[in-house]
Amino acid sequence: MEGYGLFLVLLVSALLLGFLSVLFALIWVFHYREGLSWDGGSAEFNWHPVLIITGFVFIQGIAIIVYRLPWTWKCSKLLIKFIHAGLNTIAMILAIVSLVAVFDFHNAKNIPNMYSLHSWIGLAAVIFYTLQLVLGFAVFLLPFAPVSLRASLMPIHIYSGLLIFATVIATALMGFTEKLIFALKNPAYSTSPPEAIFVNTLGLLILIFGALILWMATRPHWKRPPEQNSKIQQPNGGTPEGTEEESTMTDCSNTDKSDVEFNSEAAARKRNLKLDEVGQRSTM
Amino acid sequence: MEGYGLFLVLLVSALLLGFLSVLFALIWVFHYREGLSWDGGSAEFNWHPVLIITGFVFIQGIAIIVYRLPWTWKCSKLLIKFIHAGLNTIAMILAIVSLVAVFDFHNAKNIPNMYSLHSWIGLAAVIFYTLQLVLGFAVFLLPFAPVSLRASLMPIHIYSGLLIFATVIATALMGFTEKLIFALKNPAYSTSPPEAIFVNTLGLLILIFGALILWMATRPHWKRPPEQNSKIQQPNGGTPEGTEEESTMTDCSNTDKSDVEFNSEAAARKRNLKLDEVGQRSTM
Repeated sequence: MEGYGLFLVLLVSALLLGFLSVLFALIWVFHYREGLSWDGGSAEFNWHPVLIITGFVFIQGIAIIVYRLPWTWKCSKLLIKFIHAGLNTIAMILAIVSLVAVFDFHNAKNIPNMYSLHSWIGLAAVIFYTLQLVLGFAVFLLPFAPVSLRASLMPIHIYSGLLIFATVIATALMGFTEKLIFALKNPAYSTSPPEAIFVNTLGLLILIFGALILWMATRPHWKRPPEQNSKIQQPNGGTPEGTEEESTMTDCSNTDKSDVEFNSEAAARKRNLKLDEVGQRSTM
Repeated sequence: MEGYGLFLVLLVSALLLGFLSVLFALIWVFHYREGLSWDGGSAEFNWHPVLIITGFVFIQGIAIIVYRLPWTWKCSKLLIKFIHAGLNTIAMILAIVSLVAVFDFHNAKNIPNMYSLHSWIGLAAVIFYTLQLVLGFAVFLLPFAPVSLRASLMPIHIYSGLLIFATVIATALMGFTEKLIFALKNPAYSTSPPEAIFVNTLGLLILIFGALILWMATRPHWKRPPEQNSKIQQPNGGTPEGTEEESTMTDCSNTDKSDVEFNSEAAARKRNLKLDEVGQRSTM
């Protein structure tokens, strides 16, 4: 992998920022607010930021870059697809539970639902995310879609995934703004009490987290190399980007784990040879 | 150009959404608010959304995709760079004037500056945008930077440009949220008066505008083809992406305007031949 050191630095930074964001969300609701419970009160509302930041920001971010982790390139692409889909499913469930918490809180307090721009864009993001997940499952995970359909939908899948992720972060920033204006009355948000500074900082953390994820996800030289042993199944054709047939590997145990090398072409060639061997073994 | 029809549809849609957003901003401040003036009152504040949407959203969006317009591919890259830099400079000036309007309004009304997450991220966006413009001018417009520096900075320039653009849209959405909560008291934002629905819709318009610009800017097959006649100046070397030497053309008049063709490779080859001729003419 070209620039492996830089990739590691960015990955560790993103993980740290992600963990820190979740930690900040927990400190926000436990130290500055009413904690967490499911009683129709403010402590039920508090599940909303905690679950959105944990699931819809952090876990979604990791799901986006899971293909980029070079030590997973020895695993079958199908396995990584399951991990990608699984993480996104967890994120979707947490996002939906977080919406239920807000609607429940609003209904208990007789606060109207769906009046704010935050709620409009946020609900749209959850709906598009669910659609993206269902379509991704049907086209890229189930074995029925033709290669040509996969190839034509892959750029749209990638673009809409990144767009939804960016929109989720924008929506979270709008949510922080709303909550700080509504919750901070005495002292007011405009007087910059500690909670205001703290949550503004949380906003910066998730913005930088998002920027790192988007950088890592859009570097062409950090892309997972095409599945080589698929060529054994289709010996006459190259496999266009995103259209590889499933590997015959189902986990990482078929390859030699001690032999992780990331030194450019030599290592890639060596890896491809190994994958060829694996392909031959598993198709025997 | 591959998919020229779709490109045109998206371009026209983006332009319509952009114009509509500026129109909505004007209707917002003239119909629902106090109009525009420079007197320290609310009408001075109103310059802020109008100039941000006009300059920092719409003009910046057009500046991003100006290289993608296929009818400019016959013009010299230097000319398009000047248009790109010029549009971004206009956007920067409008953004700075819009900040002055807000600071002026806050100071006149004794409202603290820079307390909100919107203001933190917004000011950071203006600062990074200015840095991006100055660095872009020094590296890509002035003739001093070596080709290797241009090549290594180009991916960062593109990524940070798109990131700043997305961040500006996110910040605008936070700004709408703030303004609607502060300005709508009787009836309140939560009761969804016409102004609330109107400005929420404006938020959706700029979000979709941004999504279209980002789609057009990130399709590899809609990229401006490399400047071919630069090879005449450097006959021994290919020119890596983003590192082309300046064309010897200075405007679009040197090529045959009647001969605009966008039909894939044949047209590209034909265009390259013409560019070679132009290069020979202009270096004679």
